Amino acid sequence: MQPIALLTDFGTRDPYVGVMKGVIQSIAPGAPLIDLSHSVLPQNVRQAAFMLMTAYHYFPVGTVFLVVVDPGVGSSRRALIVEADGYTFIAPDNGALSYVLREIDATKSFLLENRDFQLKTVSTTFHGRDVFAPAAAHTASGRSPAEFGSAVSEIVQLPDPKLQRVADRLFGEVIYADHFGNLITSIGRLQWDSHDLQLRPAFGQQIDKVRFDVRRASVTIRDRQIESVQRTYSESPAGMLVALVGSSGFLEVAINQGSAAAVLGAEAGDVIEVQLGAG
Amino acid sequence: MQPIALLTDFGTRDPYVGVMKGVIQSIAPGAPLIDLSHSVLPQNVRQAAFMLMTAYHYFPVGTVFLVVVDPGVGSSRRALIVEADGYTFIAPDNGALSYVLREIDATKSFLLENRDFQLKTVSTTFHGRDVFAPAAAHTASGRSPAEFGSAVSEIVQLPDPKLQRVADRLFGEVIYADHFGNLITSIGRLQWDSHDLQLRPAFGQQIDKVRFDVRRASVTIRDRQIESVQRTYSESPAGMLVALVGSSGFLEVAINQGSAAAVLGAEAGDVIEVQLGAG
Amino acid sequence: MQPIALLTDFGTRDPYVGVMKGVIQSIAPGAPLIDLSHSVLPQNVRQAAFMLMTAYHYFPVGTVFLVVVDPGVGSSRRALIVEADGYTFIAPDNGALSYVLREIDATKSFLLENRDFQLKTVSTTFHGRDVFAPAAAHTASGRSPAEFGSAVSEIVQLPDPKLQRVADRLFGEVIYADHFGNLITSIGRLQWDSHDLQLRPAFGQQIDKVRFDVRRASVTIRDRQIESVQRTYSESPAGMLVALVGSSGFLEVAINQGSAAAVLGAEAGDVIEVQLGAG
Repeated sequence: MQPIALLTDFGTRDPYVGVMKGVIQSIAPGAPLIDLSHSVLPQNVRQAAFMLMTAYHYFPVGTVFLVVVDPGVGSSRRALIVEADGYTFIAPDNGALSYVLREIDATKSFLLENRDFQLKTVSTTFHGRDVFAPAAAHTASGRSPAEFGSAVSEIVQLPDPKLQRVADRLFGEVIYADHFGNLITSIGRLQWDSHDLQLRPAFGQQIDKVRFDVRRASVTIRDRQIESVQRTYSESPAGMLVALVGSSGFLEVAINQGSAAAVLGAEAGDVIEVQLGAG
Repeated sequence: MQPIALLTDFGTRDPYVGVMKGVIQSIAPGAPLIDLSHSVLPQNVRQAAFMLMTAYHYFPVGTVFLVVVDPGVGSSRRALIVEADGYTFIAPDNGALSYVLREIDATKSFLLENRDFQLKTVSTTFHGRDVFAPAAAHTASGRSPAEFGSAVSEIVQLPDPKLQRVADRLFGEVIYADHFGNLITSIGRLQWDSHDLQLRPAFGQQIDKVRFDVRRASVTIRDRQIESVQRTYSESPAGMLVALVGSSGFLEVAINQGSAAAVLGAEAGDVIEVQLGAG
Repeated sequence: MQPIALLTDFGTRDPYVGVMKGVIQSIAPGAPLIDLSHSVLPQNVRQAAFMLMTAYHYFPVGTVFLVVVDPGVGSSRRALIVEADGYTFIAPDNGALSYVLREIDATKSFLLENRDFQLKTVSTTFHGRDVFAPAAAHTASGRSPAEFGSAVSEIVQLPDPKLQRVADRLFGEVIYADHFGNLITSIGRLQWDSHDLQLRPAFGQQIDKVRFDVRRASVTIRDRQIESVQRTYSESPAGMLVALVGSSGFLEVAINQGSAAAVLGAEAGDVIEVQLGAG
């Protein structure tokens, strides 16, 4: 049976996630479950969309992604099941899938409407348990998307994370701070080629490819300037503010053995600027 | 093999839960493990009892619940294995099972006494590892409750969460605040019937059924009055204090896209009042 | 398939651990995964080493331990696969394995060099995903350590946690505070024998065995003196500072139903003294 990967904002303090897993095991006994994260900031659909986009391709083809960040639960927002590139994605139609679906094309998109694949009683406040978890379990048990409801042609799109080029400067934004206080930004995807970095825009961002020499570049965030972009956390002294290419190819601002988020007081939405130094 | 669901106050910071899982896998290789929660407030047996009562029925029949919130570890408090409605519950005899066992009747209740089903060395401080986890694993491997020790006729009972009716007012209390800051209260279980809510007392609470029109009702907590009870988080503007029926049928106080616990400074034990408005 | 136990400082907020599990399931579908902890303090190799040393023997023989606390990621620090006592340990060569390997002898030690057992693209910032997780998965799938690279004769050693005897006093240190605020110290391993405690030094600490009567002993930490060492958390009144033998045999300082770490303001490295009272 293919694994089900869970991405929610439910936290791990309450029984919500455990109950979803109980529901899944009741329908699809033995389905392997993997927690992607349950600590998306409450109702932060955009962070979930970004995390999903950077993570999905490390999972086995066939994985069912169960994404429940759902501020509109109980309202008229729709619920989706989408197949793309051999993966299945299940989520409310609030943009949570929009970033990943700019990287890989949806081949099937349907609504979760069929009451046969939901719990007998559907609450107005916890569709993760009553609608989405059952859909994931039935998918892992072999049901195909078309069995869940009517076909969908358009899904809700989130705005692109900011990424602009003005002359020899790139402007992006902080998407979120991770557990280490590293600031993950929208400037990517970046790839090393000797001393140069190549930027190929991700999830359909509308700028041209850029190539620049990091020895001439500098990064500015919250009025602090960082000279150059380095390869590893450890090549600077402890406590120093650094810029580097994160593990998903997006520019990160970090402090070796410290928290950049805490030191800079930075948060989601903050502007980050790269001076390409191409002069 | 049936799943083992774990509910503890051990947190996830330390290796305690991982070690319990190692012990289980040593005895019952391949037993599926589901975390219900490890973030019960330290030594808060009542929160664990409430969580278990609201969650158990979403798990497959046959699930073994391993509940370790155990302030009396190493003392003379007894250790239990109980069968009820096809489920098995393993816990210290401190009331942790008392709420769920008011909803479903225990058919077998035995003590965990048999040293053959414990680790060779039993510490005085970690029976989760040395006594309870092995019991869960041996149960998942096919041992029956009677093999663990002598029969039990009475188990420790927690006091009921407060639920009283005085004229046209209901009085309850906050049980705990969840990850979103939503306040889960003892007023339930509630069920919608058009504009009416029906309250059928849960886990043996001693009041009569109540039915009231939510358009005439109001809710008071910490000197703040909330007009009406709504169906979803999203039908009020962001930041507004609301009352609604939570996913387990208990009245909740929440703030759409905010934390009611933080804004109200509310905590477990706070009084909540519903003015039924039946006039 | 043997389980893979994960011990990291990645936290559970971000998708890092989930992505590692996705990589493992892609290579070794169905490999059972157990989280030992993901909340090692950031870059605290010593805490990870201590946790691993106290936890490993509760896991089934054959378990693969995947330890990723890796401040030197991307630098020239080496990556290890070690077999000892039927277990396999995979970690950066930064001392994370040094405590456990003083308790059990390494029978095979090799470097993780073979590119065939790494992801196609290896980042400079996330070897947990690109190098260590694949190594664990390939091990669970039957690869042997020698296939991963060249043999290693010496690995990086951490300094011993402090444990000294001066006349009738023992000096140790706080290793870390757990989720309950209990202070885990380096004074161990201790074993009860009637009213006496026997101390047999752990992981190669260089002092002789000690035996003392706890009714005559006292413990001092942060200028607070604790009379005697007790057996259980519950035998003192709530709120009282106590010393007891923790579940891994190391002396702990705790507050029954409270947090010793918070009340004492104690932290890793603090000195703890046991006056043996052998006079």
